[in-house]
Amino acid sequence: MNFTIDVCFTPAQAEHRTISNNTVIVVVDILRATTSMVSALAHGARSVIPVSSIEKAMTLQKNGFPVAAERDGVLLSFANFGNSAFAFQKGEVKNKKLVFTTTNGTVAIDTACRHSQKVVVGAFSNISALALWVAQQQREVLVLCAGWKNTFCLEDTLFAGAFIDKLLELKAYEIASDSAHAAIDLWNTAKSDVMQYIQKAAHRERLRVLGVDDVLEFSFQQDSTAVVPIMRDGELVDVNQAL
Amino acid sequence: MNFTIDVCFTPAQAEHRTISNNTVIVVVDILRATTSMVSALAHGARSVIPVSSIEKAMTLQKNGFPVAAERDGVLLSFANFGNSAFAFQKGEVKNKKLVFTTTNGTVAIDTACRHSQKVVVGAFSNISALALWVAQQQREVLVLCAGWKNTFCLEDTLFAGAFIDKLLELKAYEIASDSAHAAIDLWNTAKSDVMQYIQKAAHRERLRVLGVDDVLEFSFQQDSTAVVPIMRDGELVDVNQAL
Repeated sequence: MNFTIDVCFTPAQAEHRTISNNTVIVVVDILRATTSMVSALAHGARSVIPVSSIEKAMTLQKNGFPVAAERDGVLLSFANFGNSAFAFQKGEVKNKKLVFTTTNGTVAIDTACRHSQKVVVGAFSNISALALWVAQQQREVLVLCAGWKNTFCLEDTLFAGAFIDKLLELKAYEIASDSAHAAIDLWNTAKSDVMQYIQKAAHRERLRVLGVDDVLEFSFQQDSTAVVPIMRDGELVDVNQAL
Repeated sequence: MNFTIDVCFTPAQAEHRTISNNTVIVVVDILRATTSMVSALAHGARSVIPVSSIEKAMTLQKNGFPVAAERDGVLLSFANFGNSAFAFQKGEVKNKKLVFTTTNGTVAIDTACRHSQKVVVGAFSNISALALWVAQQQREVLVLCAGWKNTFCLEDTLFAGAFIDKLLELKAYEIASDSAHAAIDLWNTAKSDVMQYIQKAAHRERLRVLGVDDVLEFSFQQDSTAVVPIMRDGELVDVNQAL
């Protein structure tokens, strides 16, 4: 029997599913949390510590950890970094443990960790490396989209569709739900010109208004890194180094 | 300024939105509750009384009301009818008030009524009449998909996309969310051969296994009736007769 592959459009949706503790959950928040977490690890961070609350991030900062923090797309004043993937490219986080708190992405990681012991983080920048690693696990797969405050987002859904496409190239899976079929169909509609397609997305507009849409094109570029961030004891580490 | 048009993929999603009490909410459960409710009114029922609980349906039955009732697609033994749109075509419900309780559709109507005073029921069978009526209201519009136990369903989403298409032919609306864009794109993918497209839907398979998929083709046929069911004092009545 083939393993199933499924998609939740929001963290809240996960509460209406039965999810086995052995399922590999791929958390995605393309604009911008998971794209940025992958970038931090790709640029030498020893780990990323996702936390849901601002208070916890502040406490960790007092203990010497650098902090990336935003709410509603806006950099929080106490933070060392926002959640732009470009913030970590000059080696600022090399060998450091980076604390990360964002509006949707870190909440989604929290939800995933409550449901499964095997939680990884996806972005277009590591999509092929991630698909290869996930296919090797021989387990059910769930793509958990962070969405925007528990509403559906096109950009995360496109990733889900593209990721399923990659997985199906590597291994036979059973498509488990209508949401997975929809993700594939939306990716097929968008993939010939993703940058054009994504212009209508609500979060694309939010980033434009905030003047932080410089990462947009990077966020949809595939395979700039082979990093596969996996949760181990509350920290995301590159699975290649965690072995 | 144009009025907005939005889509919720499940009743649970509606809890994460701000919905004005003046919004026209279109509830849809294509397979099969709302298709059947429209059919009952089209075949002469004086009203349809949607109730969420089996107990309430049984009590109303004791008081002389005919009852349509299913759970998980299966006819409940005490019921006079299941929720097939074909059950009402021989005049069995003519001039009667029909009590209706189903797995997802009546729950979605309940959710809609908690959010707005203007709740109508949609199906492909009344899509053009409904769009015409809704466009005349000069209000914000929300299509509330019943889904399946609070998960996303393709068939309801296709209706949402098709309905938005119809509305945009009649009047300029502002597309309010990524879920509305997704519904339009999925409808555009499906519309050239809806019957072929819907074969992959999970609920299509459920109906096949239960041997109750005879209504499938009818459920996607457009404009067999001009009935527009609207909620008035806990009952769905044809808006043309309610004036």
